[in-house]
Amino acid sequence: MNKSKLQRELLKAKFSLLKDIKTDQKQKLPQPLIQKSVKEDEEIIILPKVDRNVIVKKDIFDCIMDRSSKRVYTEESLSLEELSFLLWSTQGVKKVVGKVNFATFRTVPSGGARHPFETYLVINRVEGLKKGVYRYLPLEHKIVFLFDKNDMEEEVTEAVSGQKFIASSAVVFIWSCIPYRSEWRYDVAAHKTILQDSGHLCENLYLACEAIGCGTCAIGDYNQEIIDKFLMLDGEEEFVIYAAPVGKVKNE
Amino acid sequence: MNKSKLQRELLKAKFSLLKDIKTDQKQKLPQPLIQKSVKEDEEIIILPKVDRNVIVKKDIFDCIMDRSSKRVYTEESLSLEELSFLLWSTQGVKKVVGKVNFATFRTVPSGGARHPFETYLVINRVEGLKKGVYRYLPLEHKIVFLFDKNDMEEEVTEAVSGQKFIASSAVVFIWSCIPYRSEWRYDVAAHKTILQDSGHLCENLYLACEAIGCGTCAIGDYNQEIIDKFLMLDGEEEFVIYAAPVGKVKNE
Repeated sequence: MNKSKLQRELLKAKFSLLKDIKTDQKQKLPQPLIQKSVKEDEEIIILPKVDRNVIVKKDIFDCIMDRSSKRVYTEESLSLEELSFLLWSTQGVKKVVGKVNFATFRTVPSGGARHPFETYLVINRVEGLKKGVYRYLPLEHKIVFLFDKNDMEEEVTEAVSGQKFIASSAVVFIWSCIPYRSEWRYDVAAHKTILQDSGHLCENLYLACEAIGCGTCAIGDYNQEIIDKFLMLDGEEEFVIYAAPVGKVKNE
Repeated sequence: MNKSKLQRELLKAKFSLLKDIKTDQKQKLPQPLIQKSVKEDEEIIILPKVDRNVIVKKDIFDCIMDRSSKRVYTEESLSLEELSFLLWSTQGVKKVVGKVNFATFRTVPSGGARHPFETYLVINRVEGLKKGVYRYLPLEHKIVFLFDKNDMEEEVTEAVSGQKFIASSAVVFIWSCIPYRSEWRYDVAAHKTILQDSGHLCENLYLACEAIGCGTCAIGDYNQEIIDKFLMLDGEEEFVIYAAPVGKVKNE
């Protein structure tokens, strides 16, 4: 078991080291962007306003009770309203605060309100959207179309270790992290927090799916290189950290 | 930023390495216990059956919308029924499966259903419970009294980097991890998953608190040595991974 000793150190809190570290924030280096910017020629889609009427299972008790990892999806599409609700539940911005440096308060907590994630969507069946890969813009509650490819589902399935149920989902959520957003403030203490933060948002996806008759299944077992390449991420300043396919499920 | 390169590697998926690793599970080593055992002379308290009637804010939309990190608590106590609901929401067992090796399906997801956590409670104000430190027994939905100490709140406050609001909470949830429960199956790929799993359960605590008129605030900034010593954990096979104080909050 000693081989794990070093790995286990990663699970431990490193905040007490920070008093002796000149973090980039303490050195007054500029704060990284809260959200990746959009290229001028990229197509932006305005999402419908978040609407509680998409919810069919309202009671939080039932949502917690019935939540499980669901790997079988029907062929139904998601509506754009449902997608809007899922994006809001997982990364939606409720408030922007700050004067010199900015922070966002969202539907999910993040250490120091750093929110070091971007949300990519591999859209297969969402009403009103063509197939393709999109990115969520939480500050504006919009999505931006990035690209389309032949055999997109196959490529994603390969990236997630051949877990074939992925290809039958209506949309795959893939979260990347931009670690510097947290490192700027927390330096060596950032990385544990980033992973915990990614757990917060994935749990909200589970419960939000349950609320709208969908199912999801968190995917930790993916091939880092393949999936980063698929999303054209550099694997250093931004790379995939978690993924979860979503689809409609049959009533139990 | 290169100093972070090694740290960032920890954020990446390592599942593709597993095909070349003889994990302990593949070597047919015995599965670690799902739950820490109880000593013969320890006092066990049966929790009231989980009851949805403790919920005052039923609608999941409102729970997600209103969730925020809350650091100001009233002097009210929690009822034992409310504590029962919070423990169930964060680690409650819905089903035990398996023949030779066992796994639990819970209210929160965990990679490979390993659930590598124990829940410790620093009880300050819960009706029907004396002050002290307890541990949750998810398999039986009971708690076991571990110890009491003078100046317990002060010691916990010191452990969490002097964040004084902790001492005013009704109960502090402190989660330890027993990494071998996940390493047994996932070896080097376990550690990222463990941290993400700890985020799942903390998010459920946030939402469950919101549902019963309580507030919480995830604590990543704690002193590892002090808090492990406080709970008498060895810091190698078991150590603290996350914490969150809980208390009643004023209506907004």
